Amino acid sequence: MIVNSFEKRRLALADVLKTSGIAMALFEDTEGRRDPSIRYFTGQPGDSLLFITAEGRSLLVPWDVNMAASMASVEAIVPYTDFGRRPLAAMAGAAERLGIPAGSTIDLPSVTPYPMYIDYMEACPDHDFRCVSNGSTQAAQALRAVKDADEIQVYRTVAAITDKAMDRIEAGVRDGRFAMEADIALFIERFLREEGCESTGFETLAAGPARSFGIHAFPAWTNAAFASDGMSILDFGLSYKGYTSDVTMTFVRNAGTGKRAEMIALVQEAHDAAIKACRPGIGSREVAALVDTLFKSKGYTMPHALGHGVGLEAHEAPVVRNRDDNDDILSPGNIITIEPGLYDPAQGGVRLEDDVLITAQGAEVLTHARIVQLD
Amino acid sequence: MIVNSFEKRRLALADVLKTSGIAMALFEDTEGRRDPSIRYFTGQPGDSLLFITAEGRSLLVPWDVNMAASMASVEAIVPYTDFGRRPLAAMAGAAERLGIPAGSTIDLPSVTPYPMYIDYMEACPDHDFRCVSNGSTQAAQALRAVKDADEIQVYRTVAAITDKAMDRIEAGVRDGRFAMEADIALFIERFLREEGCESTGFETLAAGPARSFGIHAFPAWTNAAFASDGMSILDFGLSYKGYTSDVTMTFVRNAGTGKRAEMIALVQEAHDAAIKACRPGIGSREVAALVDTLFKSKGYTMPHALGHGVGLEAHEAPVVRNRDDNDDILSPGNIITIEPGLYDPAQGGVRLEDDVLITAQGAEVLTHARIVQLD
Repeated sequence: MIVNSFEKRRLALADVLKTSGIAMALFEDTEGRRDPSIRYFTGQPGDSLLFITAEGRSLLVPWDVNMAASMASVEAIVPYTDFGRRPLAAMAGAAERLGIPAGSTIDLPSVTPYPMYIDYMEACPDHDFRCVSNGSTQAAQALRAVKDADEIQVYRTVAAITDKAMDRIEAGVRDGRFAMEADIALFIERFLREEGCESTGFETLAAGPARSFGIHAFPAWTNAAFASDGMSILDFGLSYKGYTSDVTMTFVRNAGTGKRAEMIALVQEAHDAAIKACRPGIGSREVAALVDTLFKSKGYTMPHALGHGVGLEAHEAPVVRNRDDNDDILSPGNIITIEPGLYDPAQGGVRLEDDVLITAQGAEVLTHARIVQLD
Repeated sequence: MIVNSFEKRRLALADVLKTSGIAMALFEDTEGRRDPSIRYFTGQPGDSLLFITAEGRSLLVPWDVNMAASMASVEAIVPYTDFGRRPLAAMAGAAERLGIPAGSTIDLPSVTPYPMYIDYMEACPDHDFRCVSNGSTQAAQALRAVKDADEIQVYRTVAAITDKAMDRIEAGVRDGRFAMEADIALFIERFLREEGCESTGFETLAAGPARSFGIHAFPAWTNAAFASDGMSILDFGLSYKGYTSDVTMTFVRNAGTGKRAEMIALVQEAHDAAIKACRPGIGSREVAALVDTLFKSKGYTMPHALGHGVGLEAHEAPVVRNRDDNDDILSPGNIITIEPGLYDPAQGGVRLEDDVLITAQGAEVLTHARIVQLD
C-alpha cells in the first residue's frame, strides 16, 4: 500500500464534506463501535479517532501511539492520552488544531449514541453537530465499496491464498486427515499465518451434517464430525492487510438421487447463473432475483441474501439482496460474494460462495470454491 | 442454569424499572451493538431484541427462532420475521402485546444511535422514549456485576478448565512442543472444545519476546517464536456457557539479575499484594492505587488498569482502576481480574493475571496463573 493511496482516499472524502457543507468529520474505531474506515483512510488498524476536514487535513488520535508511528499514514498524530483519554477533549482539541471556525458543522459517526451526541453539543457549543443515517460514515462506506488498484492487488493475493487453503482442505478431507469440524478450523488458523495473513476475517463456520441445516451454526465449530454421511458446510475468510476473503465450500457424502442431489444441483446452477449475470450497470437486486426465481421454480426458498460486498469488513456495500429497499447498481471495483444456499432439516444444507470483482467489461471470479462430492 | 434464575434476574430489573418510572425497557443484541444482557436475562446467546416491563413481563424477538426454542427461557417468543425484520415494527408490536399504555416511558439501550432514537420517537408518537447513559443498560450491567449462585458455579467450572489448560501449556513449553505463538493459540482452541467450552472469550494474545513490550500485540498471535530468550506473554480466556475466564501467564527465559529480574519480582509482588487487599467494602480504586504506588516507588509505571470485572463479557463492571472517576466498591459476588504488568521496549513485558471472586469474608482466587521461569 503506497502512502499516496491513503491521502487520495481522504481527499475523496473531503470533496464529499465540502459538497455537504461539513467542515470536519469524526471517525471512531473503538470497542463497541468498530469502524475500519480509519484503516482505509490511514492504515491504522486499531483503536483511534480520526478527524478529516473539508480541506483534506487530517488528525489521528490513537490509543497506541507506537502502532500509529509504524502503521499510520496521516498528516498528524496526537496520542489519546494527550486529551486525557476523553473523546470530548479530543474533539475540542482537533477542532482547534485543524482550524475549524466557530459556527461550523461537524459530522459525527451515524452510530454515535444519543447521550454522547448530547454531550458533544454541550461540550462544544461553538459548533453545530450533525449525526444522520446518511452522513460521513456512509460516504466512507460508499468510497470503500469501489476498490482502488491497491485494494484489488491485495484481493488478488488473498484470493490466491484462499484458493490454496481450499485445495489443502479438500485434500485433507479426501485422505481422512480432516474428520472433525475442529480439524479444519484449526488448519485454517495456522495456514493463514504461514501465508502472511493477519487472522480470519470472521469466525470460521464449520458445520458437519448434523448442524449444516442452520445458516449459521452455533457454536461456529465444535469437535463434531465433518464430511461424514450427508452435507457439511465450510464458510471462512482470510484477512490479508485487513481485507477479508469470504468463501463457502460444501462437502457431500452420499448425495443419492433424491432431494439432496436436487438441492446440490440447484445451488451449483444458481451460483454459475448469478456470476454470469454480474456486470457493471446491473442492479444487484436483479442478480439476486434471478436466483430466487430459479429456486422458486423448483419449490425451494433461500432464507438469506444472495451475497454482499466484502473488504475491510466481512459485510459491506454494496448489498446483494432481492428486497425492495435495495437499489444498488454494480460498478467496476465492487467486490461482492455470490453465495446461494439451500437448507433442509432432514437433508442438511448446501451453500457455494465465491468472491467476484466487477470489472469494466463484466466480472472476474477471484476465488474458486466448490461442492466436493466424496463418493 | 435452572429456569428460575432467568426469571429472578428479570424481576430484579423490573424492580429497577418500577422505581425509575419506566414502563418497558428494550435490550438489543445485534451486529455492531452486542449486549449479552439478553443471554443473562433469557439464555438466548444470539441476535435478538428483548423487551422487559416494570411488571416483569418479557418478550424475546429472535433472528433464529430455532435457537430461541432450544436455548431461551422467557415468557414469550415472537420471530423477528413476524415484524418484517424491522426494529420499529417490533417496538410497536411489543408495546401492544405487553399492554404498555399510551404516554408511558420506554427506555432504549444507551448505545442507541441518535438517528435511530429519532426514528423510534417518530414511529411511536404515543410513547415517551428515554435514552440516557445511566439507564436500563447500566442497570443490567450492575445486576450482572454481582454473580448469583448459578454463575459462580459456572465460574468454578471454567476456572478449573483454564487451570488445566495452563498446566498443559506450561508442560508443552517446557518440553519444547510449543515453540511458536501459533502452537499455543491453536492448542487452546482445540482444548477448550474438548472440555465443553464454546470458544475463547476474546482473541488469544500470545506475544513472544520480540512483541511482548506492547500491552496488546497486533496481530494477536503469529508464527513468531514464543518462550525463546526474554519474556513472553500469554493472555487468554475460555468461554463456558457464555462466561469467560481471563488469565495471563508470562514465560521467562534468561531472567538475569538486572532490570528484567526486577520487573518480574515487582509484578509478582503487586499481584499477591493486590489479591490480598481484595475484600468486600474496599474501593477498587484503593486496590489499584496500592499497585501504582508500589511500582512508582521503584521508578516504574503501569500503562493500563489493574483489572476489570469479567462475566458474559471480557470487560464488565466493576472497574478496577486508579482514576478519579472510579468509585466502585467491591461486593460479594463480584468476579474481577487482577493483572499487574510492566513493559519495556528493550526488556519486553511481564504480566500476571488471575480471576478473583469477592466473598462475604474476603476473596477467593479462582485461577492459578504463574510466571514460568524456564532456566
